Amino acid sequence: MSYFQNFMKANKAYVDLHGTYHLPLKPKTKVAIVTCMDSRLHVAQALGLALGDAHILRNAGGRVTEDMIRSLVISQQQLGTREIVVLHHTDCGAQTFTNEEFAVQLRRDLGVDVAGQDFLPFTDIEESVREDITLLKQSPLIPDDVEISGAVYDVDTGRMTEVI
Amino acid sequence: MSYFQNFMKANKAYVDLHGTYHLPLKPKTKVAIVTCMDSRLHVAQALGLALGDAHILRNAGGRVTEDMIRSLVISQQQLGTREIVVLHHTDCGAQTFTNEEFAVQLRRDLGVDVAGQDFLPFTDIEESVREDITLLKQSPLIPDDVEISGAVYDVDTGRMTEVI
Repeated sequence: MSYFQNFMKANKAYVDLHGTYHLPLKPKTKVAIVTCMDSRLHVAQALGLALGDAHILRNAGGRVTEDMIRSLVISQQQLGTREIVVLHHTDCGAQTFTNEEFAVQLRRDLGVDVAGQDFLPFTDIEESVREDITLLKQSPLIPDDVEISGAVYDVDTGRMTEVI
Repeated sequence: MSYFQNFMKANKAYVDLHGTYHLPLKPKTKVAIVTCMDSRLHVAQALGLALGDAHILRNAGGRVTEDMIRSLVISQQQLGTREIVVLHHTDCGAQTFTNEEFAVQLRRDLGVDVAGQDFLPFTDIEESVREDITLLKQSPLIPDDVEISGAVYDVDTGRMTEVI
């Protein structure tokens, strides 16, 4: 049983609501939001974004990786964004394991040796936001005048709290 | 001027609508959606997702990178997802440049040499979906019984079309 066909069916109803119009490729607010893949965070709703407002980048944990930098460079240098928001959240899957435990599990369950690979787990959620902001500030590919903010999203209440 | 404070203000209204309750960490549909950061695609609405339904992973282009695989392994092996949907879209920013042009631009504008780095641009949008599905199928970290579907999202109409 695949859920894909359910999504295709739900999308038919969305198309009726959407209508046909062309919004610009470049996001209106010039903001890129870096956040987690978590299913309990619907970014557009939680931040009040309309279609066309902001880039939304999501990986496990909302971590600043090489691929996140690749995406942000395209976002900024091709598509004009000038601000970044790093948004991590409570009860994150990246808080449920260590690299060492995970490597043992993947060797056992998938027969693959990932020893030494960093899956970027973390324990302190505010600290992980600060760490990722530091990585962005240190990157030569992110200009110094790009504004960067950080926040934590509470998956139980929907509330964002700024991280200073 | 920063947009972050606007998002914080919009979030206050969202909190009132959200209410307080705890959804499970593991996504209900066991699906991970791999898609692009584009501002004109609001994934939850377009696919009819409720809070808690599915992981949403987004980078520039919706490409299958090393970091995307890292995130999917966590999604599957820690958080129980068993299906992947690769969703690219029309009028994508990844169709606006070549690696060579972009390297020249970044050297000129940022003073950084990225020669040889692949920013993963593409020209044919259905072909890019198929390429990324192939990368997932080839990865030893993605089990063979994981169901993988592909689609293209039309940013002008909101319509998803399956890629075979």
